[in-house]
Amino acid sequence: MVFTINEIAHLLEGKVVGDDSLKIDKLCKIQEAVPGSITFLANPSYEKYLYTTQASVIIINKNFQPARPISASLILVEDPYLSFTKLLTKYESLLNVSKKGIEEPTYLGKNTTIGDAVYRGAFSYIGDHVQLGNGVQIYPHAYIGDHVSIGENTIIYSGVRIYPGSRIGKNCIIHAGAVIGSDGFGFVPEPTGSYQKTPQLGYVVIEDHVEIGANTTIERATLGNTWIKQGTKIGNLVEIAHNVEIGRNTIIVALSGIAGSAKIGNHCMIGGQVGVAGHTEMGDKTMVAGQAGVTKSYKNGNITLMGTPAFERKKYLKNYALFKQLQDIQKTLKN
Amino acid sequence: MVFTINEIAHLLEGKVVGDDSLKIDKLCKIQEAVPGSITFLANPSYEKYLYTTQASVIIINKNFQPARPISASLILVEDPYLSFTKLLTKYESLLNVSKKGIEEPTYLGKNTTIGDAVYRGAFSYIGDHVQLGNGVQIYPHAYIGDHVSIGENTIIYSGVRIYPGSRIGKNCIIHAGAVIGSDGFGFVPEPTGSYQKTPQLGYVVIEDHVEIGANTTIERATLGNTWIKQGTKIGNLVEIAHNVEIGRNTIIVALSGIAGSAKIGNHCMIGGQVGVAGHTEMGDKTMVAGQAGVTKSYKNGNITLMGTPAFERKKYLKNYALFKQLQDIQKTLKN
Amino acid sequence: MVFTINEIAHLLEGKVVGDDSLKIDKLCKIQEAVPGSITFLANPSYEKYLYTTQASVIIINKNFQPARPISASLILVEDPYLSFTKLLTKYESLLNVSKKGIEEPTYLGKNTTIGDAVYRGAFSYIGDHVQLGNGVQIYPHAYIGDHVSIGENTIIYSGVRIYPGSRIGKNCIIHAGAVIGSDGFGFVPEPTGSYQKTPQLGYVVIEDHVEIGANTTIERATLGNTWIKQGTKIGNLVEIAHNVEIGRNTIIVALSGIAGSAKIGNHCMIGGQVGVAGHTEMGDKTMVAGQAGVTKSYKNGNITLMGTPAFERKKYLKNYALFKQLQDIQKTLKN
Repeated sequence: MVFTINEIAHLLEGKVVGDDSLKIDKLCKIQEAVPGSITFLANPSYEKYLYTTQASVIIINKNFQPARPISASLILVEDPYLSFTKLLTKYESLLNVSKKGIEEPTYLGKNTTIGDAVYRGAFSYIGDHVQLGNGVQIYPHAYIGDHVSIGENTIIYSGVRIYPGSRIGKNCIIHAGAVIGSDGFGFVPEPTGSYQKTPQLGYVVIEDHVEIGANTTIERATLGNTWIKQGTKIGNLVEIAHNVEIGRNTIIVALSGIAGSAKIGNHCMIGGQVGVAGHTEMGDKTMVAGQAGVTKSYKNGNITLMGTPAFERKKYLKNYALFKQLQDIQKTLKN
Repeated sequence: MVFTINEIAHLLEGKVVGDDSLKIDKLCKIQEAVPGSITFLANPSYEKYLYTTQASVIIINKNFQPARPISASLILVEDPYLSFTKLLTKYESLLNVSKKGIEEPTYLGKNTTIGDAVYRGAFSYIGDHVQLGNGVQIYPHAYIGDHVSIGENTIIYSGVRIYPGSRIGKNCIIHAGAVIGSDGFGFVPEPTGSYQKTPQLGYVVIEDHVEIGANTTIERATLGNTWIKQGTKIGNLVEIAHNVEIGRNTIIVALSGIAGSAKIGNHCMIGGQVGVAGHTEMGDKTMVAGQAGVTKSYKNGNITLMGTPAFERKKYLKNYALFKQLQDIQKTLKN
Repeated sequence: MVFTINEIAHLLEGKVVGDDSLKIDKLCKIQEAVPGSITFLANPSYEKYLYTTQASVIIINKNFQPARPISASLILVEDPYLSFTKLLTKYESLLNVSKKGIEEPTYLGKNTTIGDAVYRGAFSYIGDHVQLGNGVQIYPHAYIGDHVSIGENTIIYSGVRIYPGSRIGKNCIIHAGAVIGSDGFGFVPEPTGSYQKTPQLGYVVIEDHVEIGANTTIERATLGNTWIKQGTKIGNLVEIAHNVEIGRNTIIVALSGIAGSAKIGNHCMIGGQVGVAGHTEMGDKTMVAGQAGVTKSYKNGNITLMGTPAFERKKYLKNYALFKQLQDIQKTLKN
């Protein structure tokens, strides 16, 4: 596919600076760009590539002041990363053909309700009383347990396991190997020292526009629901325990674990390898640095946390700077 | 299903206080309870809901002294959480119908020994020389390698992978996507700087009444066995490396990693995202706080550990409280 | 199988000390060895077993000076662990019969190119335009998306998911449940507070002799490639994000996470549960202690890091030793 620079500028509502007769047939990262490609600059630490890149066109902030001459043509925009994403989305929509139809063999249970234009990959398993909306894509080896419902245009990739009774919204993406609705981790100690399993009779509810990463696990509730709200994005290898509630448009990065009955607000950003203790509550717009361990509630939100146990990030970093000098401090003291 | 409060009190060996003619048809969490439901109070931080819940009946400790009047009827018991678990178990047993029979297509190898009332889900794979006890349930897409044995009433959920030669006990539950018996992570550096793989010729042994979480991985031994003893419960996304030995009735929470040849005692409790170094030994009743890194042996057990490298938890927290004041301490020093 | 001690010494280019008429039919760990077995001593902390083991033969460093008499015969070598690995490899090659042929049912797409002596397990899925080299083994339930290529003698274990367009080299091993090529975790905030997904149009490239652990996830690039270079070994439950580049012969232990666009050098060793921040660069021969959080670049490599944020390990440990004494230091100050 070939686009003119003007077509792209029009799509992005941007302004062309430089040669406006250029034609583009590739999208590249700035440090790997080749002639004939378009790229973007958003992260300032990549500015050095601006002056050496072989890209023909660069999408850039309209207020950016280059330190040296740039050989490429520019498209000036408000938000270069958002604009480049828009361009990628356009490109993807022209490239991709959604999977449709049925690849045999598949397994289809009783009393199912299957929408139009559904894809069911080879070896996919659809249990009894399952409901699939229009345009749902079920990739090979996915397991959809009894009484599961999945809203329209949701994509379930290969090897996803959805336990019985889970409810998944519209326009969700669940990546390969994710497990939705396995038992909550609940045991009661007995006088003998062994453990009795607490039955896990609740479900998982995932609202619309949620994305769930590869091999992530979300436990069913003991009673009631484990609840992931609209627009939330969860990375790979994340553990969400039983009865957790996660608000709208919250981001949780890979390898984090949210313990049982924790409640996370809207618009939070939780870094990688974070742990959140059970029965805590985190208000809206809480940010948590990678590897932090949040052991108590921060109901007011609007704070950035760090450390284990976690507290306010700036305070953490100042004290950590002193921790790094403890040897020197001790020497001074001895003198 | 409808129960009378007296039927439930009889099951739990508890004493009714209040209206003993009530009928119950739901089980709820205290903060979400509706009229006609039964709930419980065990965690003191939920006491506030005691006075506002709409539950008809509350299971509560027999010595509990309410601060304000409670509108619900009560069932007084020794241990409310254990009693509620007993009730859930009863309820579950009335609800559930175990899966039985064979859903085609399945794959069945040669020289297998299959017990009575076994479930083999669609697309399940049973290799050669496999032994399955009575009542074993193999969900769709499970892979059971050659020479594996599985004891009676064990449940293997969808997409579990059990490598050849593993031995699984009776009454175990292995959740979706868990991998049992993949190669130990062992490599020998060569003079050229590349690595030679150490062959992994051992096996995994899992004793009776063990539960293993979704997407957890347990490596086979280099030689001998990786060994998980009776009654131990392992959460989701946990890594158990080659030649590890884990004692009886030990709990390991999600996202923890136990490195090669570590030995963990009986009745230990290991929090989430904990790391345990290779070749260390942890005695009985060791407790490890979440995100701790245990880098040496604590053979006597009976200790609670925290931090990386981990040491005694109380001492850690006292020093950490001072770490949080380092800025202030430094200021005082300067003055 | 039975070997004479002389056959083994010959294979290992070692020297026999003691009875050279012995015959061996088992390989054991030193603490579990039985009569008739051969074992080895490499880790000094196992020396105590040297004097009590029932092994008939011990492989040991040629310069080792025993503190007490040893009843077993010895084979003296340069590097006992490497020698024992060589012996295990020989033993494994005599034991193992590689899987070959096709177990039906399988799914085979259009326009595929399949080499000689390929194994395709039951319920394996091979998409359109896939290329499999000679001797490739595809275990049951593996999913190989469209346009994937896999080099000769690579083993893909049960339930591995390889998204379309990924390229896997020769002589690789990918363990059960690993996911290669799922979408990079990239979203752009919109003014409304919701997130727009950044299309992920790149691929994953894995070079020759790479091993990837069970349930590990490797994201496809946004543009370009996520790249794992020759000879690198990655453990279980590791997350490799989009556009990461990992050099040759690097080791990454279980539960670590490498964030987007990070660049890791050759011959690095990254411990378990390590986090590496996005867009950082780590030079050759960098070592990272378990649970460290590397938040900035160390382009020169040749350093060992620890802590979160990570810095030089020796300095970390010295300061941590003082952290453990903060209570005492404070008392001294007060006096």
